[in-house]
Amino acid sequence: MIEVIAFDADDTLWHSEALYFRVQQEFQALLASYCGDDGVMDELYETEMGNLPYWGYGIKGFTLSMIETAIKVTGGEIGARQIQKIIELAKEMKQAPVHLLPHVAEVIPTLSESHGLMLITKGDLFDQEAKIASSGLVPYFDHVEIVTDKTPDVYRTLLAKYGIDPRSFLMVGNSLRSDILPVVGLGAQAVHIPYHVTWAHEVAPVQGDEPIGYVELEHIGLLPDLMGRLGRSGSGG
Amino acid sequence: MIEVIAFDADDTLWHSEALYFRVQQEFQALLASYCGDDGVMDELYETEMGNLPYWGYGIKGFTLSMIETAIKVTGGEIGARQIQKIIELAKEMKQAPVHLLPHVAEVIPTLSESHGLMLITKGDLFDQEAKIASSGLVPYFDHVEIVTDKTPDVYRTLLAKYGIDPRSFLMVGNSLRSDILPVVGLGAQAVHIPYHVTWAHEVAPVQGDEPIGYVELEHIGLLPDLMGRLGRSGSGG
Repeated sequence: MIEVIAFDADDTLWHSEALYFRVQQEFQALLASYCGDDGVMDELYETEMGNLPYWGYGIKGFTLSMIETAIKVTGGEIGARQIQKIIELAKEMKQAPVHLLPHVAEVIPTLSESHGLMLITKGDLFDQEAKIASSGLVPYFDHVEIVTDKTPDVYRTLLAKYGIDPRSFLMVGNSLRSDILPVVGLGAQAVHIPYHVTWAHEVAPVQGDEPIGYVELEHIGLLPDLMGRLGRSGSGG
Repeated sequence: MIEVIAFDADDTLWHSEALYFRVQQEFQALLASYCGDDGVMDELYETEMGNLPYWGYGIKGFTLSMIETAIKVTGGEIGARQIQKIIELAKEMKQAPVHLLPHVAEVIPTLSESHGLMLITKGDLFDQEAKIASSGLVPYFDHVEIVTDKTPDVYRTLLAKYGIDPRSFLMVGNSLRSDILPVVGLGAQAVHIPYHVTWAHEVAPVQGDEPIGYVELEHIGLLPDLMGRLGRSGSGG
């Protein structure tokens, strides 16, 4: 039986990647007069990956990577005013209102009546706290955990911290890499709900032919029905 | 009786502000050819304060504020290569080894034998996690909490979360504003250990003539003796 359902936040409960995508397009437009569109996005992604050990995830690190990319792809020709515009774009991102995904506002209160709910989100503490606070969902979660990365070790530590048996734990998220594979590897269950845009970094390679034990749903509105069926038939561990 | 001692981290257990101070000097040197020394530090501080709602505390926000300041004080004349140098300075900051303050390596293990210990640090999750991990002190703390700000509400929530009576709680830190005043206001006890450099933002104005109930120590090496005396005489609530 599933007792605790944990949710990823960005692109599972509210829109996030779409905002990054839009800002990247504005960033590309800003650089168009210097270098056209050629390879800017690839260079940005490479810079972001190289900077992960320095900045981790979140808007501030993304912004520093945009600035570095702008300097690199323009061969140092980018003007200070353009760099200030990149910073302004980032400030708009930070101030952007939280838009819940469809069904979230109904599903979370409903499930909170039958299950313990957790929020487990990866990213910048300052970004995430603000989004969580303005989501209106805080009262429905027993625990909120903001982590710098979602590895099997991080999930193992969280389950131990709250005394949760992995067999009674189910994680819901949009990222195979961060939300599904590490959890399934611990013997817990997982529900994958793809978002229409996925950051390349979060795409997990599927290895081998063995089926991986998780359920895929089209949208979160289908989750209460699934939980009802899991409850009736037993989780099977 | 004090049962739980909580420690601030930056400039209480290890050096931090001195590193910011050194980087600020290099930043000032970088701008010297554009605008001399005049007002650069004041402008940086003002930019940081204006950016707190966007970036919170930590190296990444500090870096974005340095870049904005550089653009502003040079009237947009700063070159992209100089901005890249600011980013390199920030990366060096992030990679700088953690240097424990004198006595910390002895005092923390000693006190962990007689008291529950907590670490309560304000700042960027990614910065703080890395410093905590490399400090070697993790095994001595029962709980580690990284928060975006240290207000009375934040302390109240933490004490409730762990079921700690404020009268049995003592906070140790270098910042009157963040570590001492909010805690004393909850009826808990506090030990102020000044660091030789204090960020202007952390300097709290002392209001009125009423004495505020906290102890000031010259260095953390004196803390076990103080705890022994508090234990013998009772905390007095």
